[in-house]
Amino acid sequence: MRMYDIILKKRNGEVLSKQEIEFVVNGYVNGEIPDYQVSALLMAIYFKKMNEEETLNLTMAMAHSGEMLDLSGISGKKIDKHSTGGVGDKTTLIVAPIAASLGVKVAKMSGRGLGHTGGTIDKLESIEGFKTVMSDEEFIRHVNDINIALVSQTKNLAPADKLLYALRDVTATVDNLSLIASSIMSKKLASGADGIVLDVKTGNGALMTDEQDSIELAKTMVKIGEGAGRNVVALVTDMDEPLGFAVGNALEVEEAIETLKGRGPQDLTNLCVYLAAYMVMLNDGNLSFDKAVKMAKDALYTGRALAKFREFIIAQGGDDNIINDTSLIKKGRIECDVKSEHVGYIKRIDTRKIGSTLMTLGGGREKKEDGIDYGVGIIVQRKIGDYVNKGDIIARIYGNNEASIAAAKKNIIESIEFSDSEVSKKQLIKYIITKDKIIKKLN
Amino acid sequence: MRMYDIILKKRNGEVLSKQEIEFVVNGYVNGEIPDYQVSALLMAIYFKKMNEEETLNLTMAMAHSGEMLDLSGISGKKIDKHSTGGVGDKTTLIVAPIAASLGVKVAKMSGRGLGHTGGTIDKLESIEGFKTVMSDEEFIRHVNDINIALVSQTKNLAPADKLLYALRDVTATVDNLSLIASSIMSKKLASGADGIVLDVKTGNGALMTDEQDSIELAKTMVKIGEGAGRNVVALVTDMDEPLGFAVGNALEVEEAIETLKGRGPQDLTNLCVYLAAYMVMLNDGNLSFDKAVKMAKDALYTGRALAKFREFIIAQGGDDNIINDTSLIKKGRIECDVKSEHVGYIKRIDTRKIGSTLMTLGGGREKKEDGIDYGVGIIVQRKIGDYVNKGDIIARIYGNNEASIAAAKKNIIESIEFSDSEVSKKQLIKYIITKDKIIKKLN
Repeated sequence: MRMYDIILKKRNGEVLSKQEIEFVVNGYVNGEIPDYQVSALLMAIYFKKMNEEETLNLTMAMAHSGEMLDLSGISGKKIDKHSTGGVGDKTTLIVAPIAASLGVKVAKMSGRGLGHTGGTIDKLESIEGFKTVMSDEEFIRHVNDINIALVSQTKNLAPADKLLYALRDVTATVDNLSLIASSIMSKKLASGADGIVLDVKTGNGALMTDEQDSIELAKTMVKIGEGAGRNVVALVTDMDEPLGFAVGNALEVEEAIETLKGRGPQDLTNLCVYLAAYMVMLNDGNLSFDKAVKMAKDALYTGRALAKFREFIIAQGGDDNIINDTSLIKKGRIECDVKSEHVGYIKRIDTRKIGSTLMTLGGGREKKEDGIDYGVGIIVQRKIGDYVNKGDIIARIYGNNEASIAAAKKNIIESIEFSDSEVSKKQLIKYIITKDKIIKKLN
Repeated sequence: MRMYDIILKKRNGEVLSKQEIEFVVNGYVNGEIPDYQVSALLMAIYFKKMNEEETLNLTMAMAHSGEMLDLSGISGKKIDKHSTGGVGDKTTLIVAPIAASLGVKVAKMSGRGLGHTGGTIDKLESIEGFKTVMSDEEFIRHVNDINIALVSQTKNLAPADKLLYALRDVTATVDNLSLIASSIMSKKLASGADGIVLDVKTGNGALMTDEQDSIELAKTMVKIGEGAGRNVVALVTDMDEPLGFAVGNALEVEEAIETLKGRGPQDLTNLCVYLAAYMVMLNDGNLSFDKAVKMAKDALYTGRALAKFREFIIAQGGDDNIINDTSLIKKGRIECDVKSEHVGYIKRIDTRKIGSTLMTLGGGREKKEDGIDYGVGIIVQRKIGDYVNKGDIIARIYGNNEASIAAAKKNIIESIEFSDSEVSKKQLIKYIITKDKIIKKLN
């Protein structure tokens, strides 16, 4: 088998075999196939696409390119939840405790934030003492004991994905459905869950801005899951505005605690109930959706999810006093209100720019190696459809540096567009995609 | 300027600016832009094409990426002739002396054969004592003295082309019109001629098998020439069968001498007269085509071209006794006739396979470093349209090794297809393309 022939085949629009795809992935990881041949193939894939079977084969080859997490020490099904990344997305902090409190085993590996999107590990590490690194034994023991554990991705999972992503990133071959889907799913498959609830974000703050593309991505990932013998459900949800109000690690922990106390923002609460309900359903195939939603709501409003969150923090060494007294959460020293310079309905929020503004404040990373300031962030007080008077507070900034706060303020003002006529609120949950059907949500 | 943005731009089907193209070519030659970004760009160019202006800019950037041959020491116009490569193509050995004998300055740089196609340097080096390496001063002096000199390409001309070609060769990005045209023309522009007659081969033994593609290539190269301020004419000629009868370095020298004596194969003779006529016309813009053809024929049939060939051989140290006595030309020790196993009209000759058979005999190169056996080769006795009886000799092999001769024999038999019904002869000269018009030859 020669890499040249594989490039030529894909360039000519033919379908690559499982053997050919494995040859490419393994050869690249082993250093036998050079970057320049792989980048030519990636560009050919960009133009000629991959079909369902090729995409599954690519994902499987990538998933098996390194270590596969062995979760067999955990009794029962392991259910994971994954978001394609957004701004203000603190759902894991809420959904995982809800699901765990309902008996679901949540053995989760998470990443750090990069660019305009945040990461669960950063949010958790903003809690004093919280440890996200532990041994496999400890990780498995925690899940067996309290149904939940969350670690940062330190293992060599799906190394092919790391290599391919780095190459795609510099060769303008990122935005291809099969390549995106296989990148996400290879890591998920390697981290061992039996069921996965995917939250595919769509809108100007998401990886995919176009709704139809997001639906296709969701469908592709559900198909991959099915092909790999895992149960996967995908929700396509809005990212045309930040989720909830808080953007910034410590601020998001505070908002998550408020939500677990039953008084969080409505959009965030609703999405978390849905995501948790689907995790519960993947765990117990006999449950109806209505029943699962009721269980998730009960866990939330009776405080059982919050109690689980406390157990979780304590188990991983964090200071649980922040739950009773959120004023203990360390925020940026300087508070600054952003006031509206316009009158009217908020029509559009440049959500990616809001996410980048967290970087401006020092709370996000441009490069993987960058350190971050956990306490800084933005509370976006007004959302799309809200009517705003001139001088109304539209956001509050928490920062530690006057210059970055001034820059952040300017960014936020520029991010928001107004309209004289009424604007409808965004619909948060747009589609629910299972292996059998696509449900379009109408409210 | 960032390479990433240039890849993205071309991937999205946009037109690259002169500055962007120069950035890529210079950055690649300087080692500042890595292979993997260039190969991704090449694949994007394969799919999205380059327009006329981009192709010209690419060619100019490649031509200027290294040394430019300075022919200003030669008085008068310098006219070059270039073939895109074929099987049995010994035209330079005939055309250059005809043109030189008519006062045209032929200061030519040539290459060696590779793969199934031969090279002029190899053919000349099969002449005892013939030297193809000389100093610039010597080269220029020869042309000033006798109107003709021919050297092998030792200079660092168009290094961007060498790098890009090597990369295209392993990334399935060779067959793009703009990339092929810029590769050929960058070297021609760097080697300094004022006028260039291009012989674009088409058919199963050519770089381009499809006639329409060959016409497009010819048109593109003529446009590039015009854009670069050079006069360029292109002939699109048949390569569905070997040119003339002889395939193999020494055998082709012999056939060239026969042709210069006025008794060469008709197809070869006609093409040489045409090519020489166009060289003469590029040299003197006032000449009509009919007049130029008459001049070329006169030079050929009065022996003046042969006399020029003798001067040329002597000037470059070769043994000119082979002209009077072609039996002095060293051929393969073992002669072997290939007899037809069929009755009928020859319908098709796999010309590329005939070219590869020369490699089988040791007379061609698979890799640049390979040495070759000058004396071996094939005389293809019968061509398309000829009627052949079972047992008729269709080819004669000259070899130095029984095993390779047996393999060559098998190849040749496999290369020829027969038909029961009459088959028309191939038309050799198909199109003549100048900057103003395309002439379709009807005979």
